[in-house]
Amino acid sequence: MSAIRHALNTKREDDFAAWYQEVISAADMAEESGVRGCMVIKPWGYGIWERMQRLLDDRIKAAGVQNAYFPLFIPLKNFEREAEHVDGFAKEMAVVTHHRLIADGEGGLIPDPEAKLEEPLVVRPTSETIIGDAMSRWIQSWRDLPLRLNQWANVVRWEMRTRMFLRTSEFLWQEGHSAHASAEEAQAETMTALEMYRAFAEEDVAIPVIAGEKPENERFPGAVETWSIEAMMQDGKALQAGTSHYLGTNFAHAANIKYQNDAGREVLCHTVSWGVSTRMVGGLIMVHGDDDGLRVPPALAPFQVVILPMLRDKPEDEALLDYCEGLRAAIAGQTALGEPARVLLDKRPGKAAAKRWDWVRKGAPVIIEVGGRDMENGVVSLLRRDALWNTETGKPAFQNPERDLCAQSIPGVLADMQNGMLVAARERREANIRRDISDMDALAEHFSREAKYPGWVEVQWAKPTGDALAKVVETLKELRLTLRNVPMHAPPADGTCIFTGEPAVERVYVARAY
Amino acid sequence: MSAIRHALNTKREDDFAAWYQEVISAADMAEESGVRGCMVIKPWGYGIWERMQRLLDDRIKAAGVQNAYFPLFIPLKNFEREAEHVDGFAKEMAVVTHHRLIADGEGGLIPDPEAKLEEPLVVRPTSETIIGDAMSRWIQSWRDLPLRLNQWANVVRWEMRTRMFLRTSEFLWQEGHSAHASAEEAQAETMTALEMYRAFAEEDVAIPVIAGEKPENERFPGAVETWSIEAMMQDGKALQAGTSHYLGTNFAHAANIKYQNDAGREVLCHTVSWGVSTRMVGGLIMVHGDDDGLRVPPALAPFQVVILPMLRDKPEDEALLDYCEGLRAAIAGQTALGEPARVLLDKRPGKAAAKRWDWVRKGAPVIIEVGGRDMENGVVSLLRRDALWNTETGKPAFQNPERDLCAQSIPGVLADMQNGMLVAARERREANIRRDISDMDALAEHFSREAKYPGWVEVQWAKPTGDALAKVVETLKELRLTLRNVPMHAPPADGTCIFTGEPAVERVYVARAY
Repeated sequence: MSAIRHALNTKREDDFAAWYQEVISAADMAEESGVRGCMVIKPWGYGIWERMQRLLDDRIKAAGVQNAYFPLFIPLKNFEREAEHVDGFAKEMAVVTHHRLIADGEGGLIPDPEAKLEEPLVVRPTSETIIGDAMSRWIQSWRDLPLRLNQWANVVRWEMRTRMFLRTSEFLWQEGHSAHASAEEAQAETMTALEMYRAFAEEDVAIPVIAGEKPENERFPGAVETWSIEAMMQDGKALQAGTSHYLGTNFAHAANIKYQNDAGREVLCHTVSWGVSTRMVGGLIMVHGDDDGLRVPPALAPFQVVILPMLRDKPEDEALLDYCEGLRAAIAGQTALGEPARVLLDKRPGKAAAKRWDWVRKGAPVIIEVGGRDMENGVVSLLRRDALWNTETGKPAFQNPERDLCAQSIPGVLADMQNGMLVAARERREANIRRDISDMDALAEHFSREAKYPGWVEVQWAKPTGDALAKVVETLKELRLTLRNVPMHAPPADGTCIFTGEPAVERVYVARAY
Repeated sequence: MSAIRHALNTKREDDFAAWYQEVISAADMAEESGVRGCMVIKPWGYGIWERMQRLLDDRIKAAGVQNAYFPLFIPLKNFEREAEHVDGFAKEMAVVTHHRLIADGEGGLIPDPEAKLEEPLVVRPTSETIIGDAMSRWIQSWRDLPLRLNQWANVVRWEMRTRMFLRTSEFLWQEGHSAHASAEEAQAETMTALEMYRAFAEEDVAIPVIAGEKPENERFPGAVETWSIEAMMQDGKALQAGTSHYLGTNFAHAANIKYQNDAGREVLCHTVSWGVSTRMVGGLIMVHGDDDGLRVPPALAPFQVVILPMLRDKPEDEALLDYCEGLRAAIAGQTALGEPARVLLDKRPGKAAAKRWDWVRKGAPVIIEVGGRDMENGVVSLLRRDALWNTETGKPAFQNPERDLCAQSIPGVLADMQNGMLVAARERREANIRRDISDMDALAEHFSREAKYPGWVEVQWAKPTGDALAKVVETLKELRLTLRNVPMHAPPADGTCIFTGEPAVERVYVARAY
């Protein structure tokens, strides 16, 4: 078999941004659409998103939250009611102003001036206001609470600079929305969603995350508290991979979401919202990809095992295909990570070695090549995507188990890989977090040193607010740094604030970010 | 237990349209959103749509079609290229003209005149043109064919008169799109999709359908052939429940979808598209609903079995809940219609009888009430939604099986109900099709008789085209009738054309329609 290393053109350490784009293209995940800021998600990329949807949706349903669907279009007046929310979102949104096209007389089409909407409609950038409208109709008494809903939908934010999966004008997501009788219940729901995201990121996407509260300057427009899970990419930057917002009574006030409490008094509900988007696919690439292409955690791989028969356009092919079909059926009969194993027998024309590298670049967890000699010996040639190379020989690290044992081993291999990817990512993250930096000079020095990928720094701070916080944000901005979050599970502060010199009250992560 | 019949206010036979609206409201499926022509799909309605998605998506994947996702926005130029398609769709579409809002100085918001798009964008009414763009990039040689894609998405058609699920400005659907090397292959794909829809409608939705070709006046804009599945509602009207279009080279020509054939010549692809939408939920209501509310086929019910403990706010409740939890777990362990049974133990506050009627109106297939006396006797009180009433006593037809036998019987009950609903709907349809009408006077007489719900008439015709067809359509329109489709599986014509008196060449259905 070919020993040629078909790596990508770009290595992570040379140009991480170019590497990222190359992986998306080489793994055939997505491409620019030609429509401003919108991408086409191709089958392999969409298949990964579908797996994310399935696994996260299972968690959402298990938590007792119900899916529903709300309109794509939001009347302007909904935004006008919530002042702070408008400031955050009203700037860049797609606005529908007409409902008909007519010929322009020169072979083209124009919006029909006769079909101008009385009130323009906004394409939803998020659905707090429209779902709030529905909640105000549906909730009358405490018996209607809590009301816990989720929507899978596309949303549009007119972004100026876009990058596939990470920031696109249209993206896909789920948005959870709930209304509660008290602040305590709403805050507990905020934490339930955050914990669901942590478990999803770590157990399904194999991405270790830090769960914590965003500083006030990073809050969702209109929120009282914003919590996030933050993941470290291989270039050391942070990616906010999911958020959960306690909205207090702000949106309830704007949308008139009230209930009659058991004393018969009308009071405002406390609301919560939480979202995870196709951004997570970008995170998956930047955490798990390597210089040979993508690596997909087995729980998310549309196909976990790909079988490549080495066909030779000869009569012997038939027996080889039978042999491979037997393997396929045996693997499909296995339960891996709690579901039937997903296996593809790839009979497309083309050389097995070329197809192998296609699947390596796509990151299929296990690739099994089967040639005539394998068949004669009753074995197969198996390649694990997480252990692709024999480091001594520099050749692909094929294993040659017996065919029937191979099928039985698949659940163990996939579980081991799923866990191994999480462990490796966590070790890499911990190796790239500094917790020993306590003054601004050292911080600046750390982030200005030659190493391209300086990782995160956990500092202690006095949690400044208002103008004092704005000053901190400004100082960090000069170093191209941002505050990420205040981790939930951290030792108590015992030092002084790196920014103000006051006694610190908690720890906060500082990093470059997507 | 209460013998009061909590029927709907409206009976099907009195006012079918009002009954339809009442079912949607009484079953808590959807409601008007306040945004013009857009509905909110509530959890029970959306849960049914999710089940449809799951089962149809399984069929789509089994057929080897891959899911992908394309932009919501389509540039005007895409529509300008395909003249016939424009005529069909360009009239009523949502047009985005601005990408920013600003304050109007009076507390409101307006589209920012500085942020006008150079070229307006259309919110997709269907995606042939944008997917065609991608296909033109992805297809080079015959090796890239066939290319078979599917998208689950929202689409917008600015409808003037809307009715929930049946015709809304925004709706949810799947749209399959494929490109092929030859007309034969594309036509075969058109039939594959049609057969998939037939099987989905009949096996999953329990709606019997007639598969056939639409007459030329009913073709999708730009299509060479349009095929449909047609279902009869309980008011005798037809609902087009899914369509599959052979597009010839029309869209390939407009979008430049070409491949190099094995002789090295560049030739146009033949393309196909096919779609099923949330309209199918409307069909489900109108085929299976009765005067007590909705009835959901077990394959599509978010919960197939609902257990209602008769709680009395007393210490005995705990033992009763344990008894019910045992039942729930035993049912959840059963496999029904090929999947784990979906069962809910409904512990919400409220009287069991009131909750029973909630679930009757929602159409849960099996409702199990459990009171203290049931528990003492080791039994349960089971109600089948498809056999709700004891016709002799006029009371709910409770059965009282032993608890453990009850759990074991659930798969059989659900399979029987799924099949029974299809059989009953088919018998009703066949009883309401006339095949013995051969002249226009008799046709007019049939549709003008006093019976409100005259059903369908299968007539023989000479398949007129062009002006001759237009005349037929006009004549039928005066009787408020439409041509539905030319059934695939029908005896050969042996009479004369009901419209022209010429020798007939085939049969065609005539009916009122949604």
